[in-house]
Amino acid sequence: MDTLTLEVTGMTCGGCENAVKRALGRLDGVGDVSASHIERQVVAHYDTAKVTAAQIREKVAACGFVVVD
Amino acid sequence: MDTLTLEVTGMTCGGCENAVKRALGRLDGVGDVSASHIERQVVAHYDTAKVTAAQIREKVAACGFVVVD
Repeated sequence: MDTLTLEVTGMTCGGCENAVKRALGRLDGVGDVSASHIERQVVAHYDTAKVTAAQIREKVAACGFVVVD
Repeated sequence: MDTLTLEVTGMTCGGCENAVKRALGRLDGVGDVSASHIERQVVAHYDTAKVTAAQIREKVAACGFVVVD
């Protein structure tokens, strides 16, 4: 499992964090995900054989959050 | 434009509402969208020639929110 750390804005509560976690959890190959609106950070563990970092970034963006970095 | 009204749980702040609005706004054929975490409701105006109600429901679910009705 690789680890992807993203700076994400647009999350402003625990509900936003949960939405991101559930959304990424639906991607095949994504394992544990943590999200913090206070730290503006999403950390995803993922299997590089099944999913790419770009797909994870795109999924966060597709759900209306903004990937800064 | 048709109007789709969904009961959606999992939105708990304005950030969640904005995420849903931005996510649906990325779908071709979706026009104005309103979302209220207090009313647990998402209302989307959409062009039935370009997008289906099922696709809109799936998009909300794919972003980690729960479509109840």
